[in-house]
This record gives sequence, C-alpha cells and structure tokens, in this order.
Amino acid sequence: MNNYKIIAMIPARMGSTRIPKKNIRILGNKPLMQYPIDLCMMCDRFESIWFNSESEELGRIAEKMGVNFHKRPDELSSNKATNRDFVYEFLKAHECDYVVMVNTTSPLLSLNTLNNFIDFISEHDFDTVLSVVNEKTECFFKNEPINFPLSEKINSQYLEPVARTVWAMTAWKRDTFIRLQESGSNPVFGGKLGLFSVPKDESCDLDTEEDWNIAEGMILSKERKPSPRYYL
Amino acid sequence: MNNYKIIAMIPARMGSTRIPKKNIRILGNKPLMQYPIDLCMMCDRFESIWFNSESEELGRIAEKMGVNFHKRPDELSSNKATNRDFVYEFLKAHECDYVVMVNTTSPLLSLNTLNNFIDFISEHDFDTVLSVVNEKTECFFKNEPINFPLSEKINSQYLEPVARTVWAMTAWKRDTFIRLQESGSNPVFGGKLGLFSVPKDESCDLDTEEDWNIAEGMILSKERKPSPRYYL
Repeated sequence: MNNYKIIAMIPARMGSTRIPKKNIRILGNKPLMQYPIDLCMMCDRFESIWFNSESEELGRIAEKMGVNFHKRPDELSSNKATNRDFVYEFLKAHECDYVVMVNTTSPLLSLNTLNNFIDFISEHDFDTVLSVVNEKTECFFKNEPINFPLSEKINSQYLEPVARTVWAMTAWKRDTFIRLQESGSNPVFGGKLGLFSVPKDESCDLDTEEDWNIAEGMILSKERKPSPRYYL
Repeated sequence: MNNYKIIAMIPARMGSTRIPKKNIRILGNKPLMQYPIDLCMMCDRFESIWFNSESEELGRIAEKMGVNFHKRPDELSSNKATNRDFVYEFLKAHECDYVVMVNTTSPLLSLNTLNNFIDFISEHDFDTVLSVVNEKTECFFKNEPINFPLSEKINSQYLEPVARTVWAMTAWKRDTFIRLQESGSNPVFGGKLGLFSVPKDESCDLDTEEDWNIAEGMILSKERKPSPRYYL
C-alpha cells in the first residue's frame, strides 16, 4: 500500500447543456453538486478537496458546503473545453501524487466504493485509473460479437465482461498527466491504465432527463426499502 | 412491410433463483408477470399471446389476466434449461412466421418500443432479432479499447456505440429456429441477425435485488414526474 498524496477535484459548470443548470438542480433532497462534495468530505483519504468551476456563484456555494474552490479560467468552461485542458490547468496549480476527479453526474456513488477506488490506486502504480461497469451480457461492435461465439449460448454468468467507462471517478498521476499533455500526447488515457469496477446501481450517468428520472427513482427507492410483497 | 404472422411468448418460471418468486412479486402496483402480459395485450400486432411456464399456478393467473397458457414440460424448467430448448418445444406446438419472446424481466418496456420492434421485424427478413442498448461510451474488452483510440479523447457523442444485449424482446423466425435446432446448431443467434436498439431507461434487467430497486424507483419516478426545483 503506497502512501500517495491524493487530492479530490469535483468539476462543474453552470452552463450544462442537456440538463439545464443541473448542478444546482435538486435531486432527492439536495442539489446535485452536493453529492460528490458530501461524499469526498466523508472520505478521510484526501489531503484536500477542490471544486473546479468557472462560476463564482457555484464556487461560493461549494465553499459554504465545506470544500475549496478552484476558479477555472472562463476559456476552459465552454461546451468544447476538453477535460485534458481543465485537468492540466488544475494540476499545474496543485501539488499531489494523484488527483481523483469525482463527477457530479454520479450522485449514487457510495463511500465504500470511493474508498475501494482509493485502495485500488494505492495498491498499484497506475498512471490513469478509469471507473467502469462490467457488463456480463452478449455485446456487439459493428454487428460483430465481442465476448461470445454465435455458435453457442453461454450462460451470462460465464461470459467475459465488456467494461464500459462511466467517468464516476477517474484518477491520474500528476507527473504523467502533465508530461503527456506538455509533449502533445493525450493524457486522459495515458500511461499504465487501470480499470476499476463500480457496482451498476451506483453508476448512473446524468446526461439526459431520462437519466435524471432514473437517478431520482433510485434515490427514492433506497430511502423506501420496503419488504417484498407477493400476489399469492 | 411484410404481413408476417407473429405470436407473443412470455416465459416465466415459479422457481426464480436470484430474486425468489419474482414473477408474482409486486413491483410498483402489480405483479412482475403482469407487465409483459398487459403490454402484449395492448399491442394489436400479435395473432395470439402465450404465457409459457411449467407452473399450473402461474398459468392460471396468466389466463385470468387474459392470455393463453402454454404448459411447459417440467424438464424444461430447471435452472439449467436453456432458452433454445423451451423455445423449440413451444414453436413445435404453435404455427407462426415469427415468435416474439417478451421477458418478465423488462417491466419498463413501452408499447411504443414494442410496436417499433415489430415494425423492425416486418420491414426486414431477419432470422433472429435481439434487443440491445447502444452504449456510447469508451468500452474495453480484456483491457483493450473496443470503440475508441487511447491516443485521443473523442466526445462521447461521436463514439461508435457498443451494443449490449438486453433480452427485453427477442424475435425468431420459426422455420429457421426449428431447422437449426434439429440440425444441432445454435438457433438462439441463428441466421440473419438484426439488432434493435431499446431506450436505456426501458431496458432494466431484473436479475438481482439491486435491479429490482432500480426498476421500482424508476416506476415510482415516472408516476411522480415533478417539475425541476433549483437551489438558487
């Protein structure tokens, strides 16, 4: 177990496009942006926690909620700004071994999963760690099977999973990220790559109104936890 | 548009393993097995609708709900019975051009999507049609990227999707299925294969208690449909 210096970064913009103002929209009983903030504050493994936004308004709210505010330059906040640019700008300003980016779009992430993610980083020497959901079902790419033969029906428990990236949490080694970015390479998937598996029901990604409904439904149902009822 | 004779088949067992007695467990306001039954009955494209089970008890409930009961031999109802065997047994007993298998494990499927699925069948000449969810995110198989280059971060809107099979609805051409099964080939993915894309929020698959919670939450949230509330 390495004793890396790890910091958290929560990126958010005021001008979200597909779900307007989603970061301050109330999901369940609190605004979306508060989910990763509360989660990171419950975790005792971060040396510091930074909310990264172009918006002074969101920044003030984040500070009130208990985390630091990193004001991102406006030019890195358009729809077209890539994460490689704003993560680079952030890392140049903050010393650490690793940054863990925790997205506001994954409000169902549990503390247990975040801690496991940090253990996973600490037990290895990755340059990049992505969070993924392992799909144990027959998958196709361009109409061709990826993880199964057409000639057999294999019980899905025995299928080799396809891992789909969910961006709930992403970790980068600071030195590698900066070096790759400055040499013109893509640092987002750079160097030695680790894939960390996230439980499916913590992985929702809030890109559309549909996703919002799903997440809200899941939060409601976690609060309810009724015992099973049967027809007979 | 071909005027195929299409029949519906809803398979269900009493002895579900991962979620006990799931077919008669109440989800939202009705038992799980009633979701595909109601859905198929709302659809005017089926010549007949069959509930396929080993259980006389489930069969009687299905008949009361308004569909036909096909009693499956007990030996095709164990945990190990594959769908190729019970679909074959069913198809031998029922004339049609196509059978559409609608699973009880996808209660969120809409009539609109089922109708689109039947249009998709009718407009082509497939032997097998699977329902899939298109995942527009970076996917890996055995740690290797499937649909993106590591050297670039491509906006996910522009990624070629990976299609994951959801088994919400599956269609088979009767003649092909029977011929392949009798010649010892696998009919499940047999012949000319079509992939039909299902909206993500209709695709939940009820394999685990987690999945059940997600589905129940989504049903609750569809009923609520509140207007957005904001923190500011």
